[in-house]
This record gives sequence, C-alpha cells and structure tokens, in this order.
Amino acid sequence: MARAKDTKDNESADLPHVVIVGAGFGGVAAARGLRGAACRVTLIDRHNYHLFQPLLYQVATAGLSPADIATPIRSLFRDQPNVRVLFGEVGGINHEKRTVSMGSSAIPYDYLVLATGARYSYFGRDEWAEFAPVLKRIEDATAIRRRLLLAFELAENSADAEERAALLTIVIVGGGPTGVELAGAIAELTGQGMVQEFRTIDPASARILLVEAAPRILAQFPESLSATASRSLAALGVEVVPGTRVEHVEARGVTIAGQFIPARTVLWAAGVVASPAAAWLSAEADRAGRVKVGPDLSIPGHPDIFALGDTAASEGWAGKPVPGLAPAAKQGGAYVARLIRARINGATPPGAFRYRHLGSLATIGRKAAVADFGRIHLKGAVAWWLWGAVHIAFLAGVRNRTAVALDWFWAYLTSRRGTRLITDSSPD
Amino acid sequence: MARAKDTKDNESADLPHVVIVGAGFGGVAAARGLRGAACRVTLIDRHNYHLFQPLLYQVATAGLSPADIATPIRSLFRDQPNVRVLFGEVGGINHEKRTVSMGSSAIPYDYLVLATGARYSYFGRDEWAEFAPVLKRIEDATAIRRRLLLAFELAENSADAEERAALLTIVIVGGGPTGVELAGAIAELTGQGMVQEFRTIDPASARILLVEAAPRILAQFPESLSATASRSLAALGVEVVPGTRVEHVEARGVTIAGQFIPARTVLWAAGVVASPAAAWLSAEADRAGRVKVGPDLSIPGHPDIFALGDTAASEGWAGKPVPGLAPAAKQGGAYVARLIRARINGATPPGAFRYRHLGSLATIGRKAAVADFGRIHLKGAVAWWLWGAVHIAFLAGVRNRTAVALDWFWAYLTSRRGTRLITDSSPD
Repeated sequence: MARAKDTKDNESADLPHVVIVGAGFGGVAAARGLRGAACRVTLIDRHNYHLFQPLLYQVATAGLSPADIATPIRSLFRDQPNVRVLFGEVGGINHEKRTVSMGSSAIPYDYLVLATGARYSYFGRDEWAEFAPVLKRIEDATAIRRRLLLAFELAENSADAEERAALLTIVIVGGGPTGVELAGAIAELTGQGMVQEFRTIDPASARILLVEAAPRILAQFPESLSATASRSLAALGVEVVPGTRVEHVEARGVTIAGQFIPARTVLWAAGVVASPAAAWLSAEADRAGRVKVGPDLSIPGHPDIFALGDTAASEGWAGKPVPGLAPAAKQGGAYVARLIRARINGATPPGAFRYRHLGSLATIGRKAAVADFGRIHLKGAVAWWLWGAVHIAFLAGVRNRTAVALDWFWAYLTSRRGTRLITDSSPD
Repeated sequence: MARAKDTKDNESADLPHVVIVGAGFGGVAAARGLRGAACRVTLIDRHNYHLFQPLLYQVATAGLSPADIATPIRSLFRDQPNVRVLFGEVGGINHEKRTVSMGSSAIPYDYLVLATGARYSYFGRDEWAEFAPVLKRIEDATAIRRRLLLAFELAENSADAEERAALLTIVIVGGGPTGVELAGAIAELTGQGMVQEFRTIDPASARILLVEAAPRILAQFPESLSATASRSLAALGVEVVPGTRVEHVEARGVTIAGQFIPARTVLWAAGVVASPAAAWLSAEADRAGRVKVGPDLSIPGHPDIFALGDTAASEGWAGKPVPGLAPAAKQGGAYVARLIRARINGATPPGAFRYRHLGSLATIGRKAAVADFGRIHLKGAVAWWLWGAVHIAFLAGVRNRTAVALDWFWAYLTSRRGTRLITDSSPD
C-alpha cells in the first residue's frame, strides 16, 4: 500500500489515541484535521456513510438518490492511514477508565471527541413519532418518499372523495430551514413533477400546510427574508400557518388551532434535541440536551473530552450560542484537531474557539431562495444559484457533486423528479 | 392537458378494455403498442416503477443507485392518455365473469395480457431463502448490498480469525448470466473497490465461489464463450465450481460436494419459475410453471387472454422454446398489441408470433464480456463496450441513461463504487 510519508500508521500502538464519536460534519473535520499528526485516530459511527444532511429533504421528495448525498466514511480516509473507521454504536463513556463502550468492547482513549449530532424531539409526545416521521437518516428520507408517493397512488385508486382529500393533504410541522425546504420541494413535486400522470386525481390539487409555533417561519433569518420565504411558498401553493402549535397528531390527521385536519401525511421538522452525550458523562446540559462546553470546547472537569456541533452548547459566537449549522460543526472539528495536535506536540494550544458565521441559506422550490450574510441579504434566483453552488461545492467527492448537478440540471430542464420509487412496501 | 390527437382517452367507457398485468419489459411493450388504438388500457403492477432488471446486480454490488435503473411507470405513459396505471397486486382471474381481482375490487376486461414475469425457486427448499437471498426486486438488491458491505465491516471489527474468514467468504449459487455478472461485480468490488480503506482486513483476500450444477457456466452460450467467461472470472479471483450441486444452505454456510464451507454471504441465482398466472387459470403449465400458449400467445381455450415473456411457454423460436430474455418479452408485448389492435379494428390479425433472437450478452467485471450472435462470437473489451452501449440504449429515459453512464464512467476511471451504503440496518 502506498502511504503518504508525513502520516503515521494507525497501528503504532505507542502513539496517543484520539477517539471521535460521530462522522458528521464535525467528526469528519476533526479526523481530517489530525492528518499527519503523531496520533492514532479511531472514528466511530453507527452508519458506514457520511451524510450530507442539508440535502436530505431532496431524497425525501424524489429529487436525489441516497447515494448522491452519502459517501462511505472509509473512502474519505483512504489516504490518511492514521485514521481507523469503526462501524458501531457507542453506548457510553467510562471517564475514570478512559474508555468508550461499543457493543461488548471497551475502546481506550487519550482524547475523546463527541460529535454525535442532534435528533428531533416531539416535546414529550413521543407517541406522535409513528404518525409524523422526522427527516434525519437516509431511511427516514426513503420512508417519507414512500409515504408521499403512496398517498397519491392510493388517492388514484380511491373512489371516496373524503378519503382522497385526506390522502392529498400534507402537513409539515416546523418552519425552520428543513420544514421550509421540505414544503417547497413537496409543492413542486405535486404541482409540476407528476403532471399528466394520473387519470383520476390531479396531484396539483394537493393541499400543503406548513405549521410553525413561532410568529414567523425561518425565525433565525431577518424578518424581511422570512416574509420573502412566506410569499415564495404561497406562490407555490403552500399554506403557511405561523404562530400556531400542533395540538394533536394521530393516524388520520392533526389538530391545529382547535380544528382537526384530516391528513394522511404529516412530517415533523420541529424541536431539535442533542444526542445523549451529556447523559453519558452526567455533564451539565442546556434545555435542548447539549453539553455545556468551555471556551476550548472541552467539557468542564474533563480537559481531554471535547464536544462540538449540535452536541455542544458553546458560547463561541462572540458570547452568543453557536448555531446548529454544518459550518459551525466543521469549524468546531477543525479547532479541536488543532488543539489536540498542539497538546500532543507540546506546543502552545490555540486560543478560545471562535465561530465565524458565514451566512444562512434556505431554498424555496426550484428557483427561489433566501440568503442572509449579515449586512447583505439576497433572495430569488440569485440566492438560488448561490445556494446550489454552495451545496455542490460542499458535497464530499467528485462523484456526488457530478451526480447531484446532473439530477438538478435534469429537474431544472424538465420539472420532473428522477427518483420517484416506492420501495419496501407492498401495495396493500 | 395537452393530448395527442390520435389517442383515445382512458375514460371513454364504451371502448374495449385491455388489462395488462405486470409492467416489466413485456407489459410495457404491450401498453406502448396500443398507443392511439381504439381501446382503454389498464396497466397494473405491484410496484410503482418499471425496473431494468439486467442491471439490478450493479445495484447489489454498489455500482448504481436504484433510481438509475427504475422509472415510475406513470411517467412512461404521461403522453398516452388511453393508458391508466394502477398500483396494486392482482390476486386472481375470474375468466367466466371476465374480471381480474385486485384487493377487494374486480376489474372487468375485454382482453387480458399476463406479463407477470418469473421468480426464483429453491427447488423445494424454501427454508434456504432466509440464508441465500435472490436478486429480483430493488429491495433484494439493497438487502444484498447491505449483507455484502456489512460482512466487511464486521470482519474489520472481529478479533476471531475463523469468523473473519467466514465473513469474507461469498458463495453464489447459479452460473447463469445473473450469477456470472454478480460474481464478477463482487470480485471487482472486493478486489479494487475498497483498496486502502480497511486497517485490519484486506478486502481483496475475500474468497468468492460460483457454484453451478450444470457441467459449465453460461450453459445457454456456446462452449468457447463459457470457457472465456470462466477464465475471466478466474482472473478476477472467482473460484468457478461447475458440475456441483448445493446440498445444504444454513446461516453459517453451505455444503457442496459433501464439504461444509463457512460463508456468511450466500446469494441465490438459480432455478427460475414463472409467477402464478397459470394457476390463476388452471391452465396447462410446463415444469417451470410457465403457461403453455398457442402460436398467437393466447392461452388455449381463452382466445382473449394472452401470456408473454417469462410467464409463457411459447414455441415461437422456430419450434424451439422462446428464451426468458428481455428482448423476448418485448417482442411478445409488441406482438400481442398488434394482434389486439387488429381484432378491435376488425382487420386481419398478424400470423403466429415469431421470436427473433438478437444475441446473448454477459459481462464479467469491468472490462470483459462475452457476446453470442449465432455465427459471430465476441469476447473481451469489444464485447464489454458493446454490452455497455446496448444496456444504456435500452434503459428507459434520458435521465437514467445519463446517470448510469456517469456512474460507469466514474467506476471506469477510479475502480471505485459510488453507492456503498448500508441502510436499514443497525450495527448490532
């Protein structure tokens, strides 16, 4: 095997061992940042792929294939022999013995990086999960795609007008970027993606509701961009319902503002909480379950354990909380790698972690988007092209960049969706 | 809705009704052949997509995404308003009432076309199905992909040399085109597709066996091409074991020639039988369950019911049985459409169905193939390029052609596989 000369082999057991849990944006950035460092790195994930989550909604809405936005983690570290990738699920940490547990084995660490991300919360109503799936993993995306497409198939077969109306009603709970992008993509799928294909129903007649508890959607964006997004969604036929809580979810629909709305497809994009890393350490967490970390992203009392990205509550944005965005996780991972490398080398460690905000982007359908770069706000087609370029640039690998560009170009030309497959389902 | 002027609407209830069961190569060809005919066509399938089965093994071996080889059936008939597509599973036929049953509804027909394809048989040992999956549906392909990739992940994590050897042993049962293509693709995946990615195991050390009961693999090809295929497989590291029956399959391995071979991955590509269309009609069937049909592909005693492709036993190849190949199904579908159209129009029906053999093709890995065009035999790189061109040309739609060409070009340049995702599985 050809190996780069400046890198150390993972098998040199005398080198310090860095264990990274989670191969999302943060974990991968941390492992990459340790390229050539005098340490062994073990990167553990419960999937064999690194997922580009910002585009997952396009898999759910039949625009992209799962493999277009996922890359085998191993292939990312082919040329970095000091990284070993382990496929497995971490169950806990023993900080006295300095080990993490994975199945029946205990993996010793010298430095530990927790980059386990976040998951959705149903505000204590976990029984809703069955009726209102979230969009977090590839399996979620293909399950949502199946649910959406199946609703149209069943409506086409149904002789009952009420049943048809319920099948053609889609409710999205949560008006953050995921909810907004999902609503826009669904509206395009129903409005344009299936024209002339049905004989009984008209997919364009589908009713799409986007329900948000806060007074406006995209609450983290400036107000003018929220308003633009609302108008763009309305133009696509989405009913935006801000300032409204979902009171109940069941198999046949949702209750909002005291009114029951029959809907066979309800999607959940609200209430993010961190993964249980804080609980593993009995460390102090914020309301969303994120571990409170110090200025160097280490966990108070555990100078060799770091948390970053959605796992951590950091004040590294000039005293404000660092937002749960991909660039924040990447910057955190790169920072922790620099810090660990300095400690290993006995060099001066970097100063406190400082998050640099690059801007916020959200897309609404195929030709509109909003972008917020502090003083500069963009909207419409310019923001959309920027959004597309940024997302393709940040995808891992030439293969996925080309595949996504091809699928988008195809959709742009034809308004059609390439991946409308109902899998793992029998017709009955 | 814009509609072609020469076509009839599916809703004109006074027109004769053609029901086609199955949207594989035969069913789609039959429906397309009825474009503009004075009839209503209902095309029923239990999937919402038409699958290009000849490339399914490339999904199983992480070379292509499912959506690259599958097209929504509806989108194929967008511009043919006399076709209605129904997503559902046919459970039987009432030939006295002239209806097919789908769920709780009975769909009346004037003409019925059975194009339900074939499935694999375990020679009466259905309990082997759990340990030796087949490759027929998209779900099979992603399940096989998961099984294959998972074996390497588990081997990387395993400390037990015997367990590792069993995980790295793959047995393929059946040396027809599917088994041969699967074996070649797996050998390339393990030999080249994952180089430098593992730290404990060497994927190239995987043992791959191709077991065939007949004296040679690719028995339907001329002997010299069988020999070429065997040599090409051996060059890729596949152990070809002809003239040998599998005696037993269990979770931990297979028994062949009295010897137990520990193997965690066993794939089944032997023993095709037709779907139960013959049983629905209590019609005469051959040993493989195919309905015996007359010279016009109608079922004896049922002049308005036709069977074609893998569902039918036809002697339309100059008195020889028509082979179970995609072109045979397509030609049968087109023939039945011509026949029905003539009957509807009161015109002279075409003569007996005559299958025109276009040749046989099989590919072995990334750069070799064998092709048999009767007097002309091709092998090696020439056959491989021909194989690639033919398969891309026959894929449905520009989008899939481009996507497959891109993935192949990528694999050709890099030897890497783009879709190595383990989905629907937890690490434990």
